Amino acid sequence: MNTFPKETYIERRNRLKQKMGSGILLFLGNEESSSNFKDNWYPFRQDSSFLYFFGLDMPGLAAIIDIDQGQEIIFGDNLTTVEVIWQGAHPPLSELAESVGIKTTHPKNELPKFLEKAGNQQIHFLPPYRPENSQKLAEWLHLSIQEIPSRVSVPLIKAVVALRSIKSEEEIREINKAVNISVSMHKKAMHEAKPGMKEYQLLGLVIGEALAQGGHLSFAPIITINGQILHNHNYSNTLTPGKMVLGDFGAESAMRYAGDITRTFPVGPEFSPVQKEIYQIVFHAYQTAVAALKPGIRFKDVHLLACKKLAEGLKDLGLMKGNLDDAVSQGAHALFFQCGLGHMMGLDVHDMEDLGEEYVGYTEELKKSKEFGLRSLRLGKELEAGYVITIEPGIYFIPQLIDQWQAENLHSEFINYDKLAEYRNFGGIRVEDGYLITESGSKILGDPLEIEISDVERIRGK
Amino acid sequence: MNTFPKETYIERRNRLKQKMGSGILLFLGNEESSSNFKDNWYPFRQDSSFLYFFGLDMPGLAAIIDIDQGQEIIFGDNLTTVEVIWQGAHPPLSELAESVGIKTTHPKNELPKFLEKAGNQQIHFLPPYRPENSQKLAEWLHLSIQEIPSRVSVPLIKAVVALRSIKSEEEIREINKAVNISVSMHKKAMHEAKPGMKEYQLLGLVIGEALAQGGHLSFAPIITINGQILHNHNYSNTLTPGKMVLGDFGAESAMRYAGDITRTFPVGPEFSPVQKEIYQIVFHAYQTAVAALKPGIRFKDVHLLACKKLAEGLKDLGLMKGNLDDAVSQGAHALFFQCGLGHMMGLDVHDMEDLGEEYVGYTEELKKSKEFGLRSLRLGKELEAGYVITIEPGIYFIPQLIDQWQAENLHSEFINYDKLAEYRNFGGIRVEDGYLITESGSKILGDPLEIEISDVERIRGK
Repeated sequence: MNTFPKETYIERRNRLKQKMGSGILLFLGNEESSSNFKDNWYPFRQDSSFLYFFGLDMPGLAAIIDIDQGQEIIFGDNLTTVEVIWQGAHPPLSELAESVGIKTTHPKNELPKFLEKAGNQQIHFLPPYRPENSQKLAEWLHLSIQEIPSRVSVPLIKAVVALRSIKSEEEIREINKAVNISVSMHKKAMHEAKPGMKEYQLLGLVIGEALAQGGHLSFAPIITINGQILHNHNYSNTLTPGKMVLGDFGAESAMRYAGDITRTFPVGPEFSPVQKEIYQIVFHAYQTAVAALKPGIRFKDVHLLACKKLAEGLKDLGLMKGNLDDAVSQGAHALFFQCGLGHMMGLDVHDMEDLGEEYVGYTEELKKSKEFGLRSLRLGKELEAGYVITIEPGIYFIPQLIDQWQAENLHSEFINYDKLAEYRNFGGIRVEDGYLITESGSKILGDPLEIEISDVERIRGK
Repeated sequence: MNTFPKETYIERRNRLKQKMGSGILLFLGNEESSSNFKDNWYPFRQDSSFLYFFGLDMPGLAAIIDIDQGQEIIFGDNLTTVEVIWQGAHPPLSELAESVGIKTTHPKNELPKFLEKAGNQQIHFLPPYRPENSQKLAEWLHLSIQEIPSRVSVPLIKAVVALRSIKSEEEIREINKAVNISVSMHKKAMHEAKPGMKEYQLLGLVIGEALAQGGHLSFAPIITINGQILHNHNYSNTLTPGKMVLGDFGAESAMRYAGDITRTFPVGPEFSPVQKEIYQIVFHAYQTAVAALKPGIRFKDVHLLACKKLAEGLKDLGLMKGNLDDAVSQGAHALFFQCGLGHMMGLDVHDMEDLGEEYVGYTEELKKSKEFGLRSLRLGKELEAGYVITIEPGIYFIPQLIDQWQAENLHSEFINYDKLAEYRNFGGIRVEDGYLITESGSKILGDPLEIEISDVERIRGK
């Protein structure tokens, strides 16, 4: 099994115990997940916080840190003799636990008893996102499933977020591995895409590349000629000349750290003049955002800086107008850039999304906006050295949204709806890379991947 | 969306209604399934019985057939305006429902109310295999989750099994598509495997091939140099000369019908003499089983016929001895062939496994054996024209099992443990294809894929 040295996990747990002070911390690993019948499983994915503190990437585990009693226990079962015959020999759980610095293991069915004995001790657990784990918590803690969300431990969430947000050097190395596999996937797509191919053929190539390098997928890829559809998992279209391919995908390293990259390239050998214009606006916003990255700056302000840059470019094209500071502060740019500039990345591609955006991306002082556009920004708070984030500006022409805004005459002092009609079927462009926040600024993650128009066109065979 | 003509679904439902006679039939579609946080989804897989009767391959649906009131209703929600902006426009649910012959749709939240009004009508449902569907049933029917298994409808299970077991011509065409993609995947593996490659590199190639042809995976691939580990989803080994690669994988067609093929080939250009001997035994068992396929024969008898053939070959090698009829009837051959000869295949790779083997593979008269070996045979009952099944004999040398049997001196009148020591680290060989049972016998599914030693070696570049 792929783990860091045991000292890493011991230190992480010690820091967690210091932060929490007292109580029982209960961590649920994930189970196998059934697709169309019980034993037809999706690829196993361990819970990321379980991986962070206990390292063991296998189903059917749970763990306890009893701060008051000074105990750390992994609950799980060894393979039965019959299972060994079918699955081959595996190291016993005690040996696996030892490899992550845990000296005590118990059979899984002893966990409820252990929790019964907790008495007045507070039992802290993180928000479950899989129904079977909600069911387990309800059963063990004698709660209804409906009660679980109100009983999750905010102190534990905050402590875990504080630890996982700052990536260590060994984590950065893992993230770089994930990003490098992601780079290979994108190079594959950019080199192999040809007019007449189906999107799913490109999908096959890029997924194959991730697996062939020993990785997994960090999320369901977006590979589409309809880049304006932001949540797009359809792969049935044909790559037609004149269109662009938007590819937003990434790998997970063997240790489950994520990469996440987006590129947009022409189906033919070159971008059209109009595509170039929009691409340049997006790319300038990307550059502006990257240049602003440093500890202490609010990511919400970086987002707004990028929005302003997008608005400037759109004004140059005649699509926006008026005072752009006002336009951005009123959210008029969100007709073109409906989503957020980026998100944390780590053991999850949207790191710690299961723990809640209010803790991961915002603070008591800075709450998430409810405004269209800003409400999709997952990260708003001040950056710190050690954060790993993505920068992913884009411009999307969404016909349904344009129609809706125009019907309401929304932000008509900032938007030139007449001119916009020419762009109605343009599609969408996004570029995205991952960055580490350093003491002095930021550093791109992974190997270089072509992003400037001339470099992209060179690969595309212009 | 990929569906059969609406008449197909109308006819299937009409036949189901005839079989059931009365009551309310409740079908739950599947939801999106979360991996490491709620919105990071595994690829969506619809429930197969839902697909069979209602055709719609999308999350968040349920359906009711109220036989007594003559109603058929799909419950589900249209995309909201916000969702259309993010996901693009989709046909309304009413239009999708109409395409499978359903005239009535209701919002999803009206389903519990509908069930409340059922009064004395019997509500029939199939066994849930996803925890969220168990939770829904418990909530809607005011049961505890623990009560659900005892409340599933055996009459509905039997009726669904009766219908889904006999494949129509249009289903055979779909299964052939799935098998043909599976054939391409295997050809890819056989052509591209090279000494020094990692198993996961082959995995990437074959999965990429499935997706690039517009398919999905029908199950998690087995691609291993340790063919004797039967449930093997480790892909970390290096292909080393002298070893064989056992590949057991298949595609799902766009309409979700399954293919499932196994081949075993040498890492180098040719099998070793010993590998050839074992391969030939397995291949003869395969041929013998295939030749026996016809309506009316019990698949359990085909299995035992193949076991006998395997035992004969093993006796020729000096690994088995004594009276082979006795050996097979006492289960001695199961030291080498621990599993079943095959299974039903259709919308699931193990077709209808969620509905229960006692209904899919056995009858009131023929119950499944509890004996080691036979207890892993998923299908025992008489074959009928229209069944689609797999034939997958193998010989596996499992060191842990050999040690266990030898320590107990098990079946020592039939097994030559001294000779067996020479084969301890041999590994395992399996071959597998899918067959349609016809009126007169059987027919292999899909395009030809090399299976004889000389043909396999030709591909491997001997």
